[in-house]
Amino acid sequence: MPKKINRRNFIKTTALVGTAVSVAPKSLIGTRASDQRVRLGFIGTGLRGQWMLYLAAQRPDVDIAAICDIDNHMIGLAMDVIRQQGSPPPDIYNNGDEDFLSVVQRDDLDAVYIATPWEWHHPMAIAAMKQGKHVGTEVPAALTVKDIWDLVNTSERTGRHCMIMENVCYRRDVMAVLNMVRRGLFGELLHLQCGYQHDIRHVKFNDGNQAYGGGVEFGEEGYSESKWRTQHSVDRNGDLYPTHGVGPVSTMLDINRGNRFVHLTSTATQSRGLHKYIVDQGGPDHPNTAVKFKLGDVVSTVIKCANGQTVIVSHDTNSPRPYSLNFRVQGTEGIWTVDNDSIYLQGRSPEEHHWEPFEPYQTDYDHPLWKRFTDAEKTIGHTGHGGIDFFILNAFVESLKQNVPPPIDVYDAASMSVISPLSEKSIRLGSAPVKFPDFTRGKWKTNKPVFGLNSEY
Amino acid sequence: MPKKINRRNFIKTTALVGTAVSVAPKSLIGTRASDQRVRLGFIGTGLRGQWMLYLAAQRPDVDIAAICDIDNHMIGLAMDVIRQQGSPPPDIYNNGDEDFLSVVQRDDLDAVYIATPWEWHHPMAIAAMKQGKHVGTEVPAALTVKDIWDLVNTSERTGRHCMIMENVCYRRDVMAVLNMVRRGLFGELLHLQCGYQHDIRHVKFNDGNQAYGGGVEFGEEGYSESKWRTQHSVDRNGDLYPTHGVGPVSTMLDINRGNRFVHLTSTATQSRGLHKYIVDQGGPDHPNTAVKFKLGDVVSTVIKCANGQTVIVSHDTNSPRPYSLNFRVQGTEGIWTVDNDSIYLQGRSPEEHHWEPFEPYQTDYDHPLWKRFTDAEKTIGHTGHGGIDFFILNAFVESLKQNVPPPIDVYDAASMSVISPLSEKSIRLGSAPVKFPDFTRGKWKTNKPVFGLNSEY
Repeated sequence: MPKKINRRNFIKTTALVGTAVSVAPKSLIGTRASDQRVRLGFIGTGLRGQWMLYLAAQRPDVDIAAICDIDNHMIGLAMDVIRQQGSPPPDIYNNGDEDFLSVVQRDDLDAVYIATPWEWHHPMAIAAMKQGKHVGTEVPAALTVKDIWDLVNTSERTGRHCMIMENVCYRRDVMAVLNMVRRGLFGELLHLQCGYQHDIRHVKFNDGNQAYGGGVEFGEEGYSESKWRTQHSVDRNGDLYPTHGVGPVSTMLDINRGNRFVHLTSTATQSRGLHKYIVDQGGPDHPNTAVKFKLGDVVSTVIKCANGQTVIVSHDTNSPRPYSLNFRVQGTEGIWTVDNDSIYLQGRSPEEHHWEPFEPYQTDYDHPLWKRFTDAEKTIGHTGHGGIDFFILNAFVESLKQNVPPPIDVYDAASMSVISPLSEKSIRLGSAPVKFPDFTRGKWKTNKPVFGLNSEY
Repeated sequence: MPKKINRRNFIKTTALVGTAVSVAPKSLIGTRASDQRVRLGFIGTGLRGQWMLYLAAQRPDVDIAAICDIDNHMIGLAMDVIRQQGSPPPDIYNNGDEDFLSVVQRDDLDAVYIATPWEWHHPMAIAAMKQGKHVGTEVPAALTVKDIWDLVNTSERTGRHCMIMENVCYRRDVMAVLNMVRRGLFGELLHLQCGYQHDIRHVKFNDGNQAYGGGVEFGEEGYSESKWRTQHSVDRNGDLYPTHGVGPVSTMLDINRGNRFVHLTSTATQSRGLHKYIVDQGGPDHPNTAVKFKLGDVVSTVIKCANGQTVIVSHDTNSPRPYSLNFRVQGTEGIWTVDNDSIYLQGRSPEEHHWEPFEPYQTDYDHPLWKRFTDAEKTIGHTGHGGIDFFILNAFVESLKQNVPPPIDVYDAASMSVISPLSEKSIRLGSAPVKFPDFTRGKWKTNKPVFGLNSEY
């Protein structure tokens, strides 16, 4: 596969945030009393892994000790990134599907970060914890109820943490709203909305040479995410990717910390978009026109919480539409919605029954963490992946350094990730309500909120 | 009860649309070959009935033969309206709860229009049809599955029409979008959203002297809608008022005409807003603080259609929030949402993945009916009640004159109204999916769309 185009894309991305070294201003990192460092292994060095390696290499408190991938091309790109940042070259593990076991067996690592195809997160996280390593895994943490329990049980048994790297929890607007929720500006929360509404047809299909679009190939013939991600749309009908929406919502609703998800229903539309894309882009004779996709184009999930609230989660990835994570936060005193960037607070908003712009609230209630890392904002922008990825990596590293549970822990990984298999089950059963397991085994009643309540991560 | 404030409100309303006689420009009404007139009885002359009387009195093709209410004060206000419009005085029926029977027994009426409390729509419509009168009823048509079947069966047996007066079907933006849907601009429809998101706490409670706010009374102590509407929030948990959202959605999805609603799930939040309003406005010692409200503050319903589409219906009436009917129309080629007044159409919108304003589409795809009655728009505004109420009344009267089924018929009345009891049942059963009865008994498969396809109504 000629990889130049992709590489160019990545280099462009790198250049874009090249000045964003300040995203991790060295003066703010590793300033704790201890000058502890953490040694990390990186499993999965595709585009996502490379980007996180780039951010990790900025940090004076991180040693990148090992990288692992089955694809030597991706390993090569990752090494370029590390070299360009002036970091010492890590050991390379590229000896097939099981070589990650050699990484987790090393005795000099504090933790591994996993950015592999979804189906690999679970076995890799389990193996790492069993070998005494903490884990940061990309979303979702696992794909079945059984595997999610396995993560929880293994984490509890080994005493190793399993953090889900749900970066949207750190989005600047979302954190300002969280701040407002905690200060009671919305009153008692009632109803929230969120979701993954992202036209990623050009991610699910490409020409086998570039990561985004240019063709209708996937699987063996595809490149980057299309190699594995698209197959989930063939095999599964449900909310395949709930965590970007549900992560922030969980922090606002104190899920697993005073509240929990009780049950959900999911309902899917017919499946049209992916087949249509293949026909429109590849022509009616392309062999992929024969592929049957199970995934409904829009999947609507409604969750009921123990404290009474409801959450609508939307999954909408196969249709032409502008990107939106669909956030809405509504309580007894007011409502914020992201799609019109507006807010209404009873007794505060100047005109009754009328929206006002959110922007002044963003300024007034900017989360302390974002204020602290203000330079990052200047270079990256408040919705930039760089910003939120800096924060999620920072939380992973700082909690490792302090040897405390991460602010988004294995129970959060479980309650967020389990939405997918529960949603699939609900759809299979004609939108039947499906109960959430209580992964905390009752501890949600006494656990206290932690996310965003620490001045450093 | 001193009614001055209310009366002043109504007079203000009347003045507001005083110049809107052109809403029903006489040149456009009754211009058909026949110079038929229709004789109507008006049952229920509260604020809603008075407004419709006002519009009916503008029409040269309508005789207002009878009015009926249990409340002499409202009868008096209605007579004022009729007198001010220079119409001959109708006969008055004000002899208690059952006097509507005397109206429907008259042998000189073509139809009755019903604008009474919700629970009365069904018995009045049934009585009217049994006496050979066509019916136009305010929303919802009936409150239980049994009563809704009764409407369908009685309409079929008597050959009398039962039109549901769902005015939002005629909203200008909604009709432009319907026009675009029919021209295929959205491709195949996938997912729609709608709902009644309206902070009507000041409707549910007042001071007993005015229709809107000023106190926390309802029931016997309340005035206007609070006299009866609020009790539904005490007794019922479900989507109490789905039709304003579901009406337009039904026309776009060809419900009962090639498609149908198959099942729904409903999930309600906790109930906080109404109690809180009583405490906040009436003080913690007000006797109404003891009232327990069953209605969850936000009720989210997801409907699955025979042709695969999903519809999210929101009911949200107890919380501070700007008004919105929550419309979203999404297909394989694009998406419109009302809350940001934006649209995105693949291959047409100038920038990929970016919204563009809806306004130019409103102009280009304005529905022929609205174009035809353009003068109305100039005086009323495209979302004005005057506009849509003119249209719904016009459809009722014109279909009566032509002796054809109304464009929104008893099957539509049924499939829209039944959402409430099904939603209550779903919530009672922990969000269980509940099947829609097929009120058309299979005819939905062959029935053809009619709404908005007629140049006159």
